[in-house]
Amino acid sequence: MTGRVSIIGLGPGNKAQRTPQATQVLARVTDLVGYGPYVQRVEAPAHVVRHSSDNREELDRARHALEMAQAGRHVGVVSGGDAGVFGMASAIFEAIQNGPAAWRSLDIEVIPGVSAVLAAAARLGAPLGGDFCVISLSDNLKPWSVVLQRLQLAAQAGFVIALYNPRSKARPWQLGEALAHLRHYAPATAPVAFARAIGRPDESVKISTVAEANAEWADMSTLVLIGCAASHTIERPDGQDPWIYTARTVAAP
Amino acid sequence: MTGRVSIIGLGPGNKAQRTPQATQVLARVTDLVGYGPYVQRVEAPAHVVRHSSDNREELDRARHALEMAQAGRHVGVVSGGDAGVFGMASAIFEAIQNGPAAWRSLDIEVIPGVSAVLAAAARLGAPLGGDFCVISLSDNLKPWSVVLQRLQLAAQAGFVIALYNPRSKARPWQLGEALAHLRHYAPATAPVAFARAIGRPDESVKISTVAEANAEWADMSTLVLIGCAASHTIERPDGQDPWIYTARTVAAP
Repeated sequence: MTGRVSIIGLGPGNKAQRTPQATQVLARVTDLVGYGPYVQRVEAPAHVVRHSSDNREELDRARHALEMAQAGRHVGVVSGGDAGVFGMASAIFEAIQNGPAAWRSLDIEVIPGVSAVLAAAARLGAPLGGDFCVISLSDNLKPWSVVLQRLQLAAQAGFVIALYNPRSKARPWQLGEALAHLRHYAPATAPVAFARAIGRPDESVKISTVAEANAEWADMSTLVLIGCAASHTIERPDGQDPWIYTARTVAAP
Repeated sequence: MTGRVSIIGLGPGNKAQRTPQATQVLARVTDLVGYGPYVQRVEAPAHVVRHSSDNREELDRARHALEMAQAGRHVGVVSGGDAGVFGMASAIFEAIQNGPAAWRSLDIEVIPGVSAVLAAAARLGAPLGGDFCVISLSDNLKPWSVVLQRLQLAAQAGFVIALYNPRSKARPWQLGEALAHLRHYAPATAPVAFARAIGRPDESVKISTVAEANAEWADMSTLVLIGCAASHTIERPDGQDPWIYTARTVAAP
């Protein structure tokens, strides 16, 4: 009996944004592994075993999935958005690299999904129209000094910056410090968007600027997008949300 | 009669990676606008009018779509991958910003898709496991000096770098110069992957390192992924392609 691990990006909360490939693979798994809310989000036949765990236990969860696959199970490891972008994919391969040699013979597949940054960008207009970067603001696994330096270099490069994990109850101060740091390097008038729970019933959007953005507007479900010199806000009539887009053309320095 | 523009990411070549939302919207359009190969890729009822154009005419194409929407049509503007990532979304909003005020009242929606970088990353393992950036190597719309500076700052930041548009018949030399430039700033042993036509029948992957990567391995259908110090290659038995992943943990500088 040959086991398998399928690492599956569920897409944003909206099921119409989950790919048919993800849905097809989910229909074949024997076990589901992941952070509780994602595991619960999946509809599955009664025989499928759900292994939910806490948000901070990625590596334990990865090893558990690999052990079950070695025992012949077909394990679906699920993440919101795309599993390769601050989801479970990296933890699975880290566990393989540091685990028994037999795990390198396992059948592992990664099924991509619509990541949160793409869903947020689509909701806002076209803020990723130029070169961009994606940064996790969590300092659980990297020094805060590295995060600040990356923000600085990204702004100096003229990238649009997408911030994952901007804020949580355990990390309330990082986003405020990040925004203060960015004010030294990013244009004051560049648009900043707070895109919360995009694709879910409680989605909301708030649009501001580098000069005026307030960290209090974010929570753990928010993706923060920081524009560059080529980013623009387009006002619209009748009280509709403005659009944000980044022009494709970059002027000579 | 109210017109609409739906800007739709078709996902990678593999139709199983196109979202149900994209498929549902495609079923309602009256017109399809886009670069020829993408417009031809869409199955549509016979009454749908296909407006194909050349790859370099984004802004003309955007204005044409907006004019048709203003005349009451429901125009589907299609891009491969995600339309917000070097696709048609930015051109549409640029046309709106510089066009007649009436266009700001149009109903515009952006339907996200699985972008090429996410599909390539999934095929390779988990190369985007840390912070990353996405850069178009084309110097059609930005100075080449800006591209080189962005590459340098991205490597100094420790980002994994995804390169779109690395090479075409009209731009044969940029990738070689970019790789030579990166050798000054990125670790020599960091993995580099050439992921070509992922999700299509002719897909192929080539894995190398920053020191040894060869620009000749890329063409206009290739996405090039350049690892960072935290990126690793996992060798596998039986001649299978190695996996590439980027560890989530970043060491103190």
